[in-house]
Amino acid sequence: MAENQTPAVVLLSGGADSTVLLHHVLRNLGRRPVHALSFNYSQRHSKELDCARWQARAAGVTEHRIIDVSFLGDLLKPATALVTGGKEVPSLRDLPAAQRVQPPTYVPNRNMILLSVGAAYAETAGVEEVFYGAQAQDQYGYWDCTTTFVERLNHVLALNRGKPVKVYAPFVRMKKAETIQLGMELGVDFSRTWSCYKGGQKACGTCPTCAERLAAFRAAGAQDPIPYETEPNTP
Amino acid sequence: MAENQTPAVVLLSGGADSTVLLHHVLRNLGRRPVHALSFNYSQRHSKELDCARWQARAAGVTEHRIIDVSFLGDLLKPATALVTGGKEVPSLRDLPAAQRVQPPTYVPNRNMILLSVGAAYAETAGVEEVFYGAQAQDQYGYWDCTTTFVERLNHVLALNRGKPVKVYAPFVRMKKAETIQLGMELGVDFSRTWSCYKGGQKACGTCPTCAERLAAFRAAGAQDPIPYETEPNTP
Repeated sequence: MAENQTPAVVLLSGGADSTVLLHHVLRNLGRRPVHALSFNYSQRHSKELDCARWQARAAGVTEHRIIDVSFLGDLLKPATALVTGGKEVPSLRDLPAAQRVQPPTYVPNRNMILLSVGAAYAETAGVEEVFYGAQAQDQYGYWDCTTTFVERLNHVLALNRGKPVKVYAPFVRMKKAETIQLGMELGVDFSRTWSCYKGGQKACGTCPTCAERLAAFRAAGAQDPIPYETEPNTP
Repeated sequence: MAENQTPAVVLLSGGADSTVLLHHVLRNLGRRPVHALSFNYSQRHSKELDCARWQARAAGVTEHRIIDVSFLGDLLKPATALVTGGKEVPSLRDLPAAQRVQPPTYVPNRNMILLSVGAAYAETAGVEEVFYGAQAQDQYGYWDCTTTFVERLNHVLALNRGKPVKVYAPFVRMKKAETIQLGMELGVDFSRTWSCYKGGQKACGTCPTCAERLAAFRAAGAQDPIPYETEPNTP
């Protein structure tokens, strides 16, 4: 494998996409120092963060920080289902078409906040590259997972006169099935990733992210190793 | 005064510029509901926040929130003088010319973080306008106080498909002396504002922001009502 001493910051939620991203950055882009950043934003459960911890250790990152931005919970709960005390998590099948443009699982401006903090951390640590696991299938409902979002954010960050940081989203044009496929090639242990918006003993199988994850594994011709309450045939 | 029912969010640090901004938004842009947001980002002292509290109450805002982003202190202290445990606050006269492009008092990506959080709060509260007190004289050393920064940030926020928020920086082309002048016209009580980067009993009079504030009051033909340790003749 090519040597690459350029350090990188990777935003690691502990879900499937960002976990594949972590391994991709560490192994496909040359062995390099990686700082993984996870965020406690008062999400409904800590399963994702437990997975992030496990994956960061298994991957052998240089540093893993879990940053406490839990103030976001109180601030944003009137408008989102994804934080403790917020709206109810919907089933994908119950989601009216009109809500798909900005579903209840959208967290107001979350990704700009997390990427801004990631860029600030990178700038402080002397790192110029921040990796972000947005993938194409989230673009239907999340304006902050799009190519244009990443491009425009980089236009802002490019103004920094001292240590400009750039955001890379290598999966932003890939479908989730393709990132799963890539993860399997990299030997990612998907049993240690968590996507479900609820924090049950098993993943619910019906919330938007469960439905999309199950469909992606099916499309990749693979079995998702995590247990589900129910596995709908049609996502 | 014209009625204006459009609510606004104002970022209020408790310094001179953002305090003038608060009164400007409340009084020159029509009587309107205003949500003031202040941030505890682990700055060296709480004098600014005490002033923000006083000003928000005096101005009669609809809501004043002090948001705890103190995680930024630990994260960013290796790279800035402005947080507890960080680098030493320099005197403006000791600042080498090369450092003026990005002085030690610059906090990595702070303004993008605070504006992202402000936009998220506004989106949640159904507010479309976020006011930001950047003024022209800070552009020498702070890329995140420039017109281009505000324009590009707005290009990002415009992508929001549900409730796009826009950042307004009405002072971004004004010199500090002009904002002081405007504040005097509005009857702002400058004795209840704090700009000094240090948290002494009196303002130091020599750090970059003290020097600039003193010069701005002089240029506006006024006396700064807060006490100083020393008042240099040349800023």
